[in-house]
Amino acid sequence: MRRRYRAPMAPSEPQRRTTVHDIAAAAGVSRGTVSRALNGGYVSAAARAAIEEAIAGIGFVPNTAARTLRTRRSQAVAFVALGQHAGAFADPNIGAVMLAANAVLSGADHQMVNLLLESPRDTERVARHLSGGFVDGAIVVSARAGDPIIKVIRDLRLPAAVVGHPPDLGDAVPYVGIDNETAAREIVSRLLATGRRRTGMIAAAQDRDSCTDRLAGYRSAMGPAFEEHLVVRVPGHDHRCGADGMRLLLEREPAIDGVFAASDVLAAGALEALREAGRAVPGDVGVVGFDDSPWAVWSQPRLSTVRQPIEEIGSAAAHLVLRQLRGEPVDPGGRILPTTTVWRDSA
Amino acid sequence: MRRRYRAPMAPSEPQRRTTVHDIAAAAGVSRGTVSRALNGGYVSAAARAAIEEAIAGIGFVPNTAARTLRTRRSQAVAFVALGQHAGAFADPNIGAVMLAANAVLSGADHQMVNLLLESPRDTERVARHLSGGFVDGAIVVSARAGDPIIKVIRDLRLPAAVVGHPPDLGDAVPYVGIDNETAAREIVSRLLATGRRRTGMIAAAQDRDSCTDRLAGYRSAMGPAFEEHLVVRVPGHDHRCGADGMRLLLEREPAIDGVFAASDVLAAGALEALREAGRAVPGDVGVVGFDDSPWAVWSQPRLSTVRQPIEEIGSAAAHLVLRQLRGEPVDPGGRILPTTTVWRDSA
Repeated sequence: MRRRYRAPMAPSEPQRRTTVHDIAAAAGVSRGTVSRALNGGYVSAAARAAIEEAIAGIGFVPNTAARTLRTRRSQAVAFVALGQHAGAFADPNIGAVMLAANAVLSGADHQMVNLLLESPRDTERVARHLSGGFVDGAIVVSARAGDPIIKVIRDLRLPAAVVGHPPDLGDAVPYVGIDNETAAREIVSRLLATGRRRTGMIAAAQDRDSCTDRLAGYRSAMGPAFEEHLVVRVPGHDHRCGADGMRLLLEREPAIDGVFAASDVLAAGALEALREAGRAVPGDVGVVGFDDSPWAVWSQPRLSTVRQPIEEIGSAAAHLVLRQLRGEPVDPGGRILPTTTVWRDSA
Repeated sequence: MRRRYRAPMAPSEPQRRTTVHDIAAAAGVSRGTVSRALNGGYVSAAARAAIEEAIAGIGFVPNTAARTLRTRRSQAVAFVALGQHAGAFADPNIGAVMLAANAVLSGADHQMVNLLLESPRDTERVARHLSGGFVDGAIVVSARAGDPIIKVIRDLRLPAAVVGHPPDLGDAVPYVGIDNETAAREIVSRLLATGRRRTGMIAAAQDRDSCTDRLAGYRSAMGPAFEEHLVVRVPGHDHRCGADGMRLLLEREPAIDGVFAASDVLAAGALEALREAGRAVPGDVGVVGFDDSPWAVWSQPRLSTVRQPIEEIGSAAAHLVLRQLRGEPVDPGGRILPTTTVWRDSA
């Protein structure tokens, strides 16, 4: 639609927007003919040419909001993520999932709109936006147990996919993820096999499935050697949390010689704290991460870690939404994609 | 609006959406009364109570798309950024600008919708989205010369603000930025004052004002010592480009003892290449960056750099858009915010 704002530089003065009527008058055809032309219906070649000329001259922009009402389609899909991840831009995984989803949606001529959640106020407003006809579907990452956005999606029956698996998701919304527990057990077992005697874990906030499951995998690999005080819990996935967590581990257990960090960015922070403390990696302490994000290769030494198929996750989530939008059947439950252990220099 | 999709799990079967008519019937009032109630007009307390009860029972969601048509307001503002920055999540600046803008827009009860540009196809679709009534305004970052999104914003007279300053922006869209040339000249001069004899630059793609201006500042600080072969141009702002650029500089000028990288992430990559080459920083080579992004403190050694007031930039851009939306006057041209040199350990 034409904007009511004449120019951004002056107090705005309502500007009458161009309507189908104006186009019809300029083209010398009926309004119905213009509407049919805009909606892809049949009109004569001569009428179409006249209408196109009139549109080019007047600068008419079809009113997508009106079309949304008629077709109930906006051709847009929301990508809902926690703002803190975009903020520090410290979680390269979210960015990679987002780009992979965008590539698929873009290929299907859908606009991805990325909505950030930072506060309860944001949550309420994002819920309103999702329910307002601005999007046809949604991809949700970093959902938590009891997530209000998931509830809104269920209530609206909005075609959606969740990345990861909040414990109370149920069967109403399909999800895409990995087997965090098995992957964590495997990499910790491999770390232990290098002869480490005292291996700790830097675990992140326990309100997401990925965190609890990675801790469960560590616990299972440790078996009878598991000790509660070797697990440090930090509030989030960022470099500083990793460094703080490592300092606390060194305090609690000066003889520590192995560390499993719940993400690569935490492992990168841990490397910094170990360097400060004069501990060689992997000589004195073996460190493993999780994600195989860019942090794994930015770090010195490069990290041994678990590779998540992060692009496949993003595109699978987008395909799940598109299939629902086309009215195709979608199996309930999750798609669990395979991970691999990548062994580099930090352990 | 109620979704036409019954459940995401089965082939979708159109579901009749709840209308104002259903609410009116359930509440025992007229449709007009329901409409007035939804639009904040006068209705009796008894009617309002009955309508609210009916809405609670039936689960009616007001049709925001319809309201958008009526009020021509979506209460949404686009934040348009290049996908590559979100992708590598290697540019923490964009994330910080985005969060700061979101905080201001959120405080004014506007939904920020982040739209990624990655391909010409994205550009066309984003332009359609901007013109479709889905947003009331836009913030554009990383615009280039001849940027098609800027053209769309001008044509639509969409209330907008640009972060940075594409050379052909003109006066139609206000912008927020920094004086890249002066800031670059100052930090390079300071680097030279530490006694460096052969100082090169890792410059990024020259299609954005920030890049050309930072190069101009380096050239001006170098004065007669400027030599073309000491400037390496890399395609983008990421860690690998910084490392590759540094390797090339070392090849061209083995006696190099100073480097100005056009961003902190490039400087971080340069540090890696210098470490590989066995050069001590700052002993053998002094390195300075630009941005004071988290990269500056993640790096070893921590970077001497230019601090951009990145949060102020994001909130100034959001305020510029909100003022236009309220119909308040906005001065044409740019807001240039102050930078400071931050001297740490890398030079």
